[in-house]
Amino acid sequence: MDRKTYKRKIYLEDKPRSQAKREILEAFSLPFEIEMIPTSDALGRVTAEPIFANVSMPHYHASAMDGIAVIAEKTYTAHEQNPLQLKLGIDFAIVDTGNAIPSPFNAVIMIEHVDMIDEETIEIIEPATPWQHIRPIGEDIVQEEMLFPQGHILRPADLGVLLAGQQLQIPVAKKPVVTIIPTGNELVEADSELSSGKIIEFNGTVFANFIKDWGGEPRLHRIVKDDPEQIKSVLLEAAQTSDIIVINAGSSAGSKDYTVHIIGEIGTVFTHGVAARPGKPVILGEINEKIVVGVPGYPVSAYLALEWFVRPLICKYLQIPEPKRQTVSVKLGRRIVSGMGAEDFVRMNIGYVNGQFVANPLTRAAGVTMSYVRADGLLIVPANVSGYEQGEFAEVELLRPLEEIKNAIMFAGSHDLTIDLLSSQLKRARADMKIVSSHVGSMAGIMAIRKGEAHVAGIHLLDPNTKQYNISYVKKILAGLDVVVFPFLKRKQGWILPKGNPLGIETVVDILEKKANFVNRQKGAGTRILFDMLLEENGISSEEIISYDREMFSHLAVAAEVNGDSHGAGLGIYPAAKAMNLDFVPVADEEYDLVMTRSFYESESGKLLIDIIQSPIFKRQVEKIGGYEVVENAEPKKLV
Amino acid sequence: MDRKTYKRKIYLEDKPRSQAKREILEAFSLPFEIEMIPTSDALGRVTAEPIFANVSMPHYHASAMDGIAVIAEKTYTAHEQNPLQLKLGIDFAIVDTGNAIPSPFNAVIMIEHVDMIDEETIEIIEPATPWQHIRPIGEDIVQEEMLFPQGHILRPADLGVLLAGQQLQIPVAKKPVVTIIPTGNELVEADSELSSGKIIEFNGTVFANFIKDWGGEPRLHRIVKDDPEQIKSVLLEAAQTSDIIVINAGSSAGSKDYTVHIIGEIGTVFTHGVAARPGKPVILGEINEKIVVGVPGYPVSAYLALEWFVRPLICKYLQIPEPKRQTVSVKLGRRIVSGMGAEDFVRMNIGYVNGQFVANPLTRAAGVTMSYVRADGLLIVPANVSGYEQGEFAEVELLRPLEEIKNAIMFAGSHDLTIDLLSSQLKRARADMKIVSSHVGSMAGIMAIRKGEAHVAGIHLLDPNTKQYNISYVKKILAGLDVVVFPFLKRKQGWILPKGNPLGIETVVDILEKKANFVNRQKGAGTRILFDMLLEENGISSEEIISYDREMFSHLAVAAEVNGDSHGAGLGIYPAAKAMNLDFVPVADEEYDLVMTRSFYESESGKLLIDIIQSPIFKRQVEKIGGYEVVENAEPKKLV
Repeated sequence: MDRKTYKRKIYLEDKPRSQAKREILEAFSLPFEIEMIPTSDALGRVTAEPIFANVSMPHYHASAMDGIAVIAEKTYTAHEQNPLQLKLGIDFAIVDTGNAIPSPFNAVIMIEHVDMIDEETIEIIEPATPWQHIRPIGEDIVQEEMLFPQGHILRPADLGVLLAGQQLQIPVAKKPVVTIIPTGNELVEADSELSSGKIIEFNGTVFANFIKDWGGEPRLHRIVKDDPEQIKSVLLEAAQTSDIIVINAGSSAGSKDYTVHIIGEIGTVFTHGVAARPGKPVILGEINEKIVVGVPGYPVSAYLALEWFVRPLICKYLQIPEPKRQTVSVKLGRRIVSGMGAEDFVRMNIGYVNGQFVANPLTRAAGVTMSYVRADGLLIVPANVSGYEQGEFAEVELLRPLEEIKNAIMFAGSHDLTIDLLSSQLKRARADMKIVSSHVGSMAGIMAIRKGEAHVAGIHLLDPNTKQYNISYVKKILAGLDVVVFPFLKRKQGWILPKGNPLGIETVVDILEKKANFVNRQKGAGTRILFDMLLEENGISSEEIISYDREMFSHLAVAAEVNGDSHGAGLGIYPAAKAMNLDFVPVADEEYDLVMTRSFYESESGKLLIDIIQSPIFKRQVEKIGGYEVVENAEPKKLV
Repeated sequence: MDRKTYKRKIYLEDKPRSQAKREILEAFSLPFEIEMIPTSDALGRVTAEPIFANVSMPHYHASAMDGIAVIAEKTYTAHEQNPLQLKLGIDFAIVDTGNAIPSPFNAVIMIEHVDMIDEETIEIIEPATPWQHIRPIGEDIVQEEMLFPQGHILRPADLGVLLAGQQLQIPVAKKPVVTIIPTGNELVEADSELSSGKIIEFNGTVFANFIKDWGGEPRLHRIVKDDPEQIKSVLLEAAQTSDIIVINAGSSAGSKDYTVHIIGEIGTVFTHGVAARPGKPVILGEINEKIVVGVPGYPVSAYLALEWFVRPLICKYLQIPEPKRQTVSVKLGRRIVSGMGAEDFVRMNIGYVNGQFVANPLTRAAGVTMSYVRADGLLIVPANVSGYEQGEFAEVELLRPLEEIKNAIMFAGSHDLTIDLLSSQLKRARADMKIVSSHVGSMAGIMAIRKGEAHVAGIHLLDPNTKQYNISYVKKILAGLDVVVFPFLKRKQGWILPKGNPLGIETVVDILEKKANFVNRQKGAGTRILFDMLLEENGISSEEIISYDREMFSHLAVAAEVNGDSHGAGLGIYPAAKAMNLDFVPVADEEYDLVMTRSFYESESGKLLIDIIQSPIFKRQVEKIGGYEVVENAEPKKLV
């Protein structure tokens, strides 16, 4: 069978996500199976039936105190003016907390209220009332009481009451077996030698761990080639051995997207495409009464589709409610546009600045796994909403604990490799702190300080008139704000070039004349401003530069692009060239400063940050990279 | 060595918890160890060092779309009025999403924008711009970029980027080994035959699971007898094999509480007693540079002490922040009194009634494990606060997801065994719902409705004048509220007596004359009101009844007490007697009704509850217990 047999399908459905979910949940016939397991192994498992106590705790009359057991009625005459003497073995017995009360005693007097006369005799000056300081049978657990209903997720202390109730083996819901089938000719195992066009298969491992986390039992199949017959036989086999099947990629409408046709042939397709982004090209169907979910190949789409459809199936199987994420109301730092007719799941960075939560969208590209990993939350734009304006408030589902977000230092501005080192050192000093950085470029970094969206901005902006770095920009853009410009690093900028510099680039004129494929930075980046200045100084128009519009967001990204093209050239910092083993021709020595509000600079977090920057260990680490010089004993630059 | 050698110490220190914690954290010298593990097994583990990408993703120029690869510069003439034809292999190549862009192509045109002329020829009507629809190298992950700092807890998607960055083995923090030593002559394994004075050892299993949950590696030692020499040798051995030692019980000041003396002898005691309840009698010390934590024997004290001191040690070892619980502001349904000078950790039930969170304290007895298991949250009363008034608002740390609390139906009132069954059926119908019941007695149940603390109250209150159940009480106490009284069950009350009825009890007069040890119910319980009525009808004073003041909070608890005493007698419902295999002599047929506000009765939850009550399966289950009759096709009782 080849691509001619399976007609290419270009358009997907736009079924509402809730409807698609309802349909598979209804089709998911529960083979609800119970297994008996030892209670001590049951952490996180789900009770399959109500569980009752077999015995009471305590199961006897137990002393609640250290003291003596007496017959209360025989102590009624005791009084301060009329002490009562009692004999060991006849009138009282010694009991510690938890001891059984020996017959015929029916009360306990605390040891602190007893006077020892001799080894055999004590004296009391206050009567006891019947049953005082005696734990009733079943004070904690009463035999036959229900300890847990079915559907309860067992926590550590729950295991204690089960054991105390002598329930040593308990019925729990079997974990649903979820077979995960990665498909694609382009996929290779993670330990393979990489060649062009080959992609490491990692979605399967991620799926398996999500499923484990959600209470399922994942089985990760080996990679299956894009061969309809093979895919078909693997699917049929999985339908026999699993409760749920997840097949990765081939779910869209490309020339090798057979999956939907195969499922239609050997089973039923309920849905092909939901009105939600990313994650739209999903397939929901059934093969031999087993639900099959076809998830898109792009990682972020895949993880969302898995959460939308596989998690509810697992929860239904276990008879537990679907967990909901904590939400927080955030102020939007940027406008968010969303097409009508489909939900949009936007990954957001959230910062806690000046006492409020501020959030900005990360890239919406479905292929950028790091944007999911780095996201603090998800903003779900409903299908009938076209977006939100900057400054509006919106509810965001949290992907990290709120506390972690609250303690993060928000860094915006120019990309520099040392920021990661700084974050590492900060975390070492205070495990609950870190730096969250967004590489938006120097100009956007200053704007983030102005808009109250960042604590610190890293900038390197050369003023073509004064030939001075940063100060004139800060004075102009942050006029009226009480800010500090702290000298952080001196660093080398230069041409990043393929190994051996095959085009022989030395100056900006060479970039033009030798027709280099230029790899540029985004607008507002300090490096771009530097490049534009070089062009202007040499009378070159940006239109003359090949691929001037090809924008990268970091020095490393520029280096990676140059690395893939023997005619490539970029402008960036030395360590980026060094990391990729590329040539580097110095162009400028830059002053990379940190801008922050004075209130942050003087806060506990701000002081800690400055302490770390000036620590010998950080200086050593930075200078080891090369191309950097830490400014020693730095003081804020004068702004007047 | 016997108890004479170790002098009994009656008083404990009152060290502030924060100080005690700071001291052991400072004494805890980090043997920070790193282990390399396969990335695919690393879920939940903590990175020990910053981890950088070994390769970029994508590591080649990849097509971002299904379509054709072209040389952008050669498409510039394409126009709607001037279509451009391109030849396969010369002018273009077919590419699917993810495919490498073959040289010399530098742009991709989406398949939707291409017209097929023949097998070899296509036509386009729009030019391409260079690098359009091509994923730059490193769009997702750039080689050498920091994927995670140290101290990051790995989540499913994190494993994906590690694999994508070809980090197949990663350095994670070794889990700290925590040895748990249960001590006590009274302890027996959970599978033992129970005899008087013997207690099932279950704390060890609970500790082990808490420690597992917090990221440690628990090692549960077998039970050690109360023998100082044995305890000493086990502690010394544990100090060699573990990072942290937890020893359970013996931490207080009783006659067998050697632990503090032993630790002092072979190591150092930092703290014996903290100003916090329960959990006060804790020991913090050091043996051969290993921290040892002696936790109290009572389960709730033990779990709190473990959380206060062992969790921070594990977090410090792993270099991660201590997680904080979500909190919620609640209205207090009852006054909470707390002694000054010590923090109080009060277990709370939280209900969401009439749009607000209302919380009530559970028992504060440290031995009642179920109160910890049933708690929705912890109210921490600071040392310098003497408590809170009823109606005040306070912040409570959540022990369950807020969603679960929001969806629970709050049941207050008289204890009945069928309420658990009802909760089970409700959960089967809607996995996210359940009934949370507090057995406070009929009168307190009605009051809970009046105060807006419960959705439903179960009552059985006989009016001595009208001989009618419930109506007169509801009319009086809930005057002015729009409520519904829904007939739920008819049930038999009677004397619960030891097997064979050794005292030959038939009437209330027999209770008096045959000197039965009476097991009473708490004030306000319908059963107590019934007993008082019987006493009055027969002219008996409550003072004449033996142990009239001994109060239990449920029918099962009464039965458990009777079961332990051949002269015992109680009043309660048939199924409680049956559950303990006791004798039962019927006294009255009761009407057990449910009281709820009309707004709850008419809500979705209310309707579901009534549907379940009237379902054949629930009726069958209830009648199988015996002593019950479900009211069929019930309608609310008339209140006028």
